[in-house]
Amino acid sequence: MIKKAIAIMTSGGDSPGMNAAARAVVRTALYEGVQVYGIKDGYDGMLKDDIIELTSRSVSDIIQRGGTFLGTARCPEFKTPEGRRKGYENLKKRGVEGLVIIGGDGSLTGGSLLSKETGIPIVGLPGTIDNDVWGTDYTIGCDTAANTIVDALNKLRDTASAHRRIMIVEVMGHKSGWLAMESGIAGGAEYVLVPEVKYDLDQMCEDIKAQYAAGKRYSIIVIAEGAGDGMGLGKIVEEKTGIDTRVSVLGHIQRGGSPTVEDRMKASMLGEKAALALISGASDVVFGFEQGKVVSINLFDSVNNKKTLDPELVRLARVLA
Amino acid sequence: MIKKAIAIMTSGGDSPGMNAAARAVVRTALYEGVQVYGIKDGYDGMLKDDIIELTSRSVSDIIQRGGTFLGTARCPEFKTPEGRRKGYENLKKRGVEGLVIIGGDGSLTGGSLLSKETGIPIVGLPGTIDNDVWGTDYTIGCDTAANTIVDALNKLRDTASAHRRIMIVEVMGHKSGWLAMESGIAGGAEYVLVPEVKYDLDQMCEDIKAQYAAGKRYSIIVIAEGAGDGMGLGKIVEEKTGIDTRVSVLGHIQRGGSPTVEDRMKASMLGEKAALALISGASDVVFGFEQGKVVSINLFDSVNNKKTLDPELVRLARVLA
Amino acid sequence: MIKKAIAIMTSGGDSPGMNAAARAVVRTALYEGVQVYGIKDGYDGMLKDDIIELTSRSVSDIIQRGGTFLGTARCPEFKTPEGRRKGYENLKKRGVEGLVIIGGDGSLTGGSLLSKETGIPIVGLPGTIDNDVWGTDYTIGCDTAANTIVDALNKLRDTASAHRRIMIVEVMGHKSGWLAMESGIAGGAEYVLVPEVKYDLDQMCEDIKAQYAAGKRYSIIVIAEGAGDGMGLGKIVEEKTGIDTRVSVLGHIQRGGSPTVEDRMKASMLGEKAALALISGASDVVFGFEQGKVVSINLFDSVNNKKTLDPELVRLARVLA
Amino acid sequence: MIKKAIAIMTSGGDSPGMNAAARAVVRTALYEGVQVYGIKDGYDGMLKDDIIELTSRSVSDIIQRGGTFLGTARCPEFKTPEGRRKGYENLKKRGVEGLVIIGGDGSLTGGSLLSKETGIPIVGLPGTIDNDVWGTDYTIGCDTAANTIVDALNKLRDTASAHRRIMIVEVMGHKSGWLAMESGIAGGAEYVLVPEVKYDLDQMCEDIKAQYAAGKRYSIIVIAEGAGDGMGLGKIVEEKTGIDTRVSVLGHIQRGGSPTVEDRMKASMLGEKAALALISGASDVVFGFEQGKVVSINLFDSVNNKKTLDPELVRLARVLA
Repeated sequence: MIKKAIAIMTSGGDSPGMNAAARAVVRTALYEGVQVYGIKDGYDGMLKDDIIELTSRSVSDIIQRGGTFLGTARCPEFKTPEGRRKGYENLKKRGVEGLVIIGGDGSLTGGSLLSKETGIPIVGLPGTIDNDVWGTDYTIGCDTAANTIVDALNKLRDTASAHRRIMIVEVMGHKSGWLAMESGIAGGAEYVLVPEVKYDLDQMCEDIKAQYAAGKRYSIIVIAEGAGDGMGLGKIVEEKTGIDTRVSVLGHIQRGGSPTVEDRMKASMLGEKAALALISGASDVVFGFEQGKVVSINLFDSVNNKKTLDPELVRLARVLA
Repeated sequence: MIKKAIAIMTSGGDSPGMNAAARAVVRTALYEGVQVYGIKDGYDGMLKDDIIELTSRSVSDIIQRGGTFLGTARCPEFKTPEGRRKGYENLKKRGVEGLVIIGGDGSLTGGSLLSKETGIPIVGLPGTIDNDVWGTDYTIGCDTAANTIVDALNKLRDTASAHRRIMIVEVMGHKSGWLAMESGIAGGAEYVLVPEVKYDLDQMCEDIKAQYAAGKRYSIIVIAEGAGDGMGLGKIVEEKTGIDTRVSVLGHIQRGGSPTVEDRMKASMLGEKAALALISGASDVVFGFEQGKVVSINLFDSVNNKKTLDPELVRLARVLA
Repeated sequence: MIKKAIAIMTSGGDSPGMNAAARAVVRTALYEGVQVYGIKDGYDGMLKDDIIELTSRSVSDIIQRGGTFLGTARCPEFKTPEGRRKGYENLKKRGVEGLVIIGGDGSLTGGSLLSKETGIPIVGLPGTIDNDVWGTDYTIGCDTAANTIVDALNKLRDTASAHRRIMIVEVMGHKSGWLAMESGIAGGAEYVLVPEVKYDLDQMCEDIKAQYAAGKRYSIIVIAEGAGDGMGLGKIVEEKTGIDTRVSVLGHIQRGGSPTVEDRMKASMLGEKAALALISGASDVVFGFEQGKVVSINLFDSVNNKKTLDPELVRLARVLA
Repeated sequence: MIKKAIAIMTSGGDSPGMNAAARAVVRTALYEGVQVYGIKDGYDGMLKDDIIELTSRSVSDIIQRGGTFLGTARCPEFKTPEGRRKGYENLKKRGVEGLVIIGGDGSLTGGSLLSKETGIPIVGLPGTIDNDVWGTDYTIGCDTAANTIVDALNKLRDTASAHRRIMIVEVMGHKSGWLAMESGIAGGAEYVLVPEVKYDLDQMCEDIKAQYAAGKRYSIIVIAEGAGDGMGLGKIVEEKTGIDTRVSVLGHIQRGGSPTVEDRMKASMLGEKAALALISGASDVVFGFEQGKVVSINLFDSVNNKKTLDPELVRLARVLA
């Protein structure tokens, strides 16, 4: 049972909805009579002692903002036991009794080491647009990112149907094709290339040539960065098909933007749950969603297992291609 | 088992994602070797024999469009057994062996009568922004509508925080407060008034006055049309609080717009399922989502029961107020 | 010539782009070595001595925000000579030698009285979504507001074309129909009703009935609030035509949202110009745009003349109806 | 004076607003009692005789769509006198007496040759997001494209301010930096690199390093494709500064999207003017905007001169950097 204070941080790549989650953590803890410290720039701020007390007002007017008001940064020093000990001391001296970490796989792994070595209670929330955290159907930000990509695909369709061109869009996802699949299907892409599924480039180019010969006006290919480099793919496809090919690389635009209703709602629910659980004595858990309900996952299980792509998405993408 | 042809129609208030659902029905049926007829303007077109054959191309380039390419209209004549019989004859003469209806409660009720009286197999899909169909957590269009409202709330916050004003937004929902609750919470509204929950207007006005006296710059009130008239509420609140109050009535804007990723994905999944089930011999079922999975609901159960508002939403709205 | 300090305020109804203008005023003045004070909540803050010094950082990260970071409020006391004297004293005691006012007609009139009575140099910038300031083709925020309305009209077209309905949209504009005209034409509205032009309601309803009889699926009517009440119009039109009619009242949504490129660019140019002119010794001028170029208008001329609606817009609306 | 028929085509890269312009041409001509033929896919359709008659209905519901409903394609054959003669014959056999061409510099050059060789009256409209047509301040689509880029920059700011990163955005503009400048300034970019202005890469990297050392959290660099390759620049900047650098390449997304109010209004005005002028006997002119008014430019002057970047934009970008 926590009586005095908790801390909260965001870590790793930011994602839209992190602010909504942090707001819910802060307001819930304060409501329960527990102080909240905000750690700036993730593990880096924990080490550099860049930690401030948060009030209800600190999280006003942020639910609609992309990014994270707490910041996030890389911190190689935290990868050493000494670094983690140093960070822990900065929390301890303020009387912090537990920590909420919002971030992806790597950030949660850092948290699991901190927990093991120092015993500080840790609750994690999956914050990443990649939707690749084991044990949860949903991660904070994935819905907004998918909608941002579909918006871009809508714009590309306008212009692609005016020309006879092949359009390639490189989206995020080093190891996970979830974002590419979801947005590719919803955006009506003809091909979706993801790291988890092998694709036959020659066959794809042959198919496209045949379709264009039959009068099709355009093809949109979505490729996850982990499945290949968009620019490189563009050159190969243009060469193999002889059809003008244009490439867009969305990059970090996918991490920004005002969060969608789903990301605001689910992030708020997860934040409330994280604060209540931590205060009640929970540790080493990650909260996520399974089948539409909030579930708790063991932190070590979450970081030690790899989520796989829903084969139903792969099937749907093929059917609709 | 259907061998030759099915028909599809949209009915009642249109909602974003109906096109995605219809596209999936058409493409799935054609893939299974079954013809598809599109009925224009709902039951009205069924009676007036405004029915056309659909091809894969008929549903190209519509997944991103709001509204419904099939149209929808009111049809008092269909409320009589003679009317329904006449409609049925127009399907029968084309060899139509089953019907997919995309619409809300009223439209599905019409379908249940048609099924009872003529025996034609009917599969329903819940298409309404109100999310008020019994047996399913989700209805086609509700996610897009909620995001449209939140977008409006984002804009209101900009200007509300510049003034010291009360902002009232009237949203759709005659009998159901789901849309108001979901968008009110996600949009950070201070009060959400819905038909299902009594509210104390005097108390609310007292609270607002106290908050303004304490320095709060603005309040946003979301009211579902079934809980009262926005314009009328505005006058009362302004009078009781003495604070400038402004009202927006979003109206049919909430039914339009390019569907979100969630509405496109779920509508596509439901459309595929509806076509496969109907062709396989199913009848008198509605497909929806429960806990993130497609489920089938008995058509008569669906239209004879009333969905209630998730009390968790009501709680959340109170906590965050 | 100003050597030490200027002040800046926003006043009246806020409009998107006011922040961009204020940012340019602040950065330009600081660059010229002159201090800048920000007056909170317009004339109200001037009287209540709610005035803070602004730095370059105070205006960071605001160019993309709607509303005004300085706030705005009503101030009946400023309408008296005593009130204005009191406000002036608050500026004087800080060594403020000149004032930039961003606001509409009423706010600039207040400024003209302050100038006459106290002699403090005043430069005005036209900030209002109504585009109704005399002497300038453009006012800060009008482009964003017009785009917000057209966005709403786009959504209405989706759903209007699905039904056979009449859609009415009430937009801002008590005395000026510019916003209604511009957005109505760009949004493809069938009728645009503005305060400056008489319309024949009976004739309009007859026309609509005839068009619907001839197969037209929908009509969109845009009405400026000064030309009538949208809700009231809806009832009359429904009664006279017998066609289902739905009304949206956009309200203050039109004042919010991230400013467009045009509003950001023109507001920035006006802000730079205002600061440079004030520092160089100008007074009693308003800066605006004529034929694409920044122009200066005499402050008293601006507030004493009434801008009329461009007849070319009226003509265009008729041609395209 | 044209009595019977005109034709209209879009050519080169498509741009948002081309549909609005074409709609105005069609409706104006029909109103004047002149038939209109639509040439599909630009010069390619002219040669392949892919030409259809357009009605008022052909251009319904397109004002809000990006791209061009007429299509556009490359046509090497049209670069030969024989090709142009063949195209001309296809117009002549339909009784087409004049042609409206909507497109960029290259397309208008094609038109000028057609006019010289065959004598057919030609009126051009500048349709390109690059805003690089000589003699006009404005080209159809440039406002929408600039707003699309600024939208992307808004999203990048969210995430850039969460990390300490450099963000590079490559935008269109092979020979012209207008789009980069306009969107870079409006979007608050720290650096804007354009083909017309030399930049010192080493100095820029030194400056950025110094700013980051002083606490600045992020820099956004906008680069026009003609000033260098975004991906390549990213690698160099990361190497020289030692700061994480991320690159977005917007590509053809910039050509799509629903047109802004400005693009709809100005395109409509230009379309009306083009039709009226052509019918009245004009030839070899391009209509554009100068200082907010429609102006006519000699077609040969337009294609033989090169528009330069407004030095005021260059200055503004420096001041605000």
